[in-house]
Amino acid sequence: MNTNKLTVNHERLKQTLQTFAAFGATGNNGVTRLALSEEDQQARAYLRQQCEALGLVVTTDDLGNMYSVIPGKQRDVPPVYLGSHLDTVKKGGRFDGVLGVAGALEVLRTVVEHKLELNVPLGLINFTNEEGARFEPSMMASGILAGKFSKDAMLQSTDQDGVSFGEALAASGFAGSAHHRLTDASAFLELHIEQGPVLEAEKQTIGAVECVVGMVCYEIEICGKSNHAGTTPQRMRHDALTAANACMTAFHEKLAPLDDTLVYTIGRFNVFPNIHTVIPGRAVFTLEARHQDEAVLAAVETVIQEVAGACSLPCQATKRWSRETVWFNNSLVAQVEESAKALGYPCKRMVSGAGHDAQFISSLVPTAMIFVPSRGGISHAEEEWTSWEDCEKGVNVLLETALKRTMHEEAIKQ
Amino acid sequence: MNTNKLTVNHERLKQTLQTFAAFGATGNNGVTRLALSEEDQQARAYLRQQCEALGLVVTTDDLGNMYSVIPGKQRDVPPVYLGSHLDTVKKGGRFDGVLGVAGALEVLRTVVEHKLELNVPLGLINFTNEEGARFEPSMMASGILAGKFSKDAMLQSTDQDGVSFGEALAASGFAGSAHHRLTDASAFLELHIEQGPVLEAEKQTIGAVECVVGMVCYEIEICGKSNHAGTTPQRMRHDALTAANACMTAFHEKLAPLDDTLVYTIGRFNVFPNIHTVIPGRAVFTLEARHQDEAVLAAVETVIQEVAGACSLPCQATKRWSRETVWFNNSLVAQVEESAKALGYPCKRMVSGAGHDAQFISSLVPTAMIFVPSRGGISHAEEEWTSWEDCEKGVNVLLETALKRTMHEEAIKQ
Repeated sequence: MNTNKLTVNHERLKQTLQTFAAFGATGNNGVTRLALSEEDQQARAYLRQQCEALGLVVTTDDLGNMYSVIPGKQRDVPPVYLGSHLDTVKKGGRFDGVLGVAGALEVLRTVVEHKLELNVPLGLINFTNEEGARFEPSMMASGILAGKFSKDAMLQSTDQDGVSFGEALAASGFAGSAHHRLTDASAFLELHIEQGPVLEAEKQTIGAVECVVGMVCYEIEICGKSNHAGTTPQRMRHDALTAANACMTAFHEKLAPLDDTLVYTIGRFNVFPNIHTVIPGRAVFTLEARHQDEAVLAAVETVIQEVAGACSLPCQATKRWSRETVWFNNSLVAQVEESAKALGYPCKRMVSGAGHDAQFISSLVPTAMIFVPSRGGISHAEEEWTSWEDCEKGVNVLLETALKRTMHEEAIKQ
Repeated sequence: MNTNKLTVNHERLKQTLQTFAAFGATGNNGVTRLALSEEDQQARAYLRQQCEALGLVVTTDDLGNMYSVIPGKQRDVPPVYLGSHLDTVKKGGRFDGVLGVAGALEVLRTVVEHKLELNVPLGLINFTNEEGARFEPSMMASGILAGKFSKDAMLQSTDQDGVSFGEALAASGFAGSAHHRLTDASAFLELHIEQGPVLEAEKQTIGAVECVVGMVCYEIEICGKSNHAGTTPQRMRHDALTAANACMTAFHEKLAPLDDTLVYTIGRFNVFPNIHTVIPGRAVFTLEARHQDEAVLAAVETVIQEVAGACSLPCQATKRWSRETVWFNNSLVAQVEESAKALGYPCKRMVSGAGHDAQFISSLVPTAMIFVPSRGGISHAEEEWTSWEDCEKGVNVLLETALKRTMHEEAIKQ
């Protein structure tokens, strides 16, 4: 490609990602860095030190979210923020979350290194406890910022050792003041690995993410009758698994044609008593479906109730939870796409099937996300991988879009 | 009905069954009387006392099996034995096993009460640990008698508190001498509840059991790929549950037409990781099938391998265990049927889908079983129920058949 665009330092970015990967490294190229654990504190300390080395101040809010901002000439305009999270799941990968933080750091370094004069301040954020792997729920701190969760309730959330989020936060040394909270920003951009196989399969490098798709999750319970597998003739059975099997077949037949981009999953499936010599008397399973169009999700719900109603045994389908599609800021998504094009990277508009801090932050400020490919679509596993080249390209798009928003007068007014 | 046949004392039988039901009674009409437990020892002591009250000696062998015999005129002919087991599963019923022992006791009482002179000795047996609910495997003591299990290995079998069968046996006071073991008999008859719904549904009172059916049990494992339920498009999935769903449908389609009396069950079914937001990467389930005809079971095995071979994902079907059909003694089964007819009871030749001590004893001596109806086909549960009338009728058939075998010269020579 041939572009005059400013780009980041590939080697420095790679080294930074490798440094982060050492905080909680597992034996198999993975990372276990649960929120506010010792390993997370080490990663946070490194991030703070790297920001301070750029001459920047690092602040933390009362939730442990970290912020560091390069001032702009326009002091009355709130910053453009870039960021994601440093915590991981247990035996997670070395890119999920941290790429968005390391990428933001690399953008700040590039701005400082090239002595770029910004009109609008430009900052990075590290959100606390995105994964929810130690303290449920996930996206905890961004959810509190967006008013989705009560801080008091969240402080009580405990890990498996009985330590509360509040206790862990106080002990971490990263609890700051509520007046440092993100309340306003000119924009928020989150760079993240796709965690799916689409970009790789379609040979795209950049995903300009339009939304986080809505979802519904049902629990379906079928009640039959447990009985002796040897003494009960086939015609006298009330086998909950046989009924569940017919329901699953019907779900596949009726859901698949609804829309090409609908995803639906029966992920949890249990029979009772689950003994090889006993006819299953009860089957309980989940069916969750995700799509950006609420009409499609409504059609899914209709199918679920139809199939449950047609079941040969008593069957109850109960909605356990749902969320609506979160649409990102149109002009910001367009700018991400333009940045990729300007840099000569293949780019695709797409949706996010997974949740991210950005979905909560988007209720506060103009927000968008940038995806880069995940090899084999794998994440939340030690095998998670994104090539260093794709990481760099994602950060270059982050830089380009951030500069559009912070250096040019017209961007501010959009 | 109008018959001159000798019958047992209905009220005495009912009271005896109620007395046994008190040893280990649960709150809900059920019984927990695990092998060699305190409750089992109480029931055994009661049985011994009742036999001694008839002027009989009770012996025990080295496995705790109890025997009590009314002598016959022909001292060189081995006894006809009647019996079953007094142990139950946890929260089992008040008929499974104990009916065959209480019924045998009632037969002996009737013989003594009416001062019948027997040609052939007539005895009862209580087999130790039929259920295998405390010490695995089931039918332990009859299996040792038949040479199917090693006594040394069985003595090491431990309950969930780490107590071995050998220790429990020694502590029970019911361990006797190996020379009391059942080695020869003129016949063995086991009266038992059906544990299935067939007699009730067909309005039959007596089942003349021709065999314990053979069975095969396979474990089927399907390996797909776990992935994120939100980010993996439907067409890129390797969903082990979806593949298992198709296999189960194929099993139903291909197994159901094989034979009307074939029973087959998918009783254990697990997916991994079994999380509602993760596509199942692995599914493991059992398929067991029972039928008296080995050609039908061979056809089942062919279907299992065909379906596994046609699975859309790597699929392995492994035979975990099997047993061959155990056919009971023809003339003894015919005598059971004749006895029922002579008494005017509706009787059906049938198979046993469940295992019983009789199946092991049949390798030693001429053996048959008598079934009586189970309400709703339920057993191994507190709801287990057989009417007092059906209990009595079963014991009358036991008495009639026993008398045929012990009082008439011609019976001895069959």
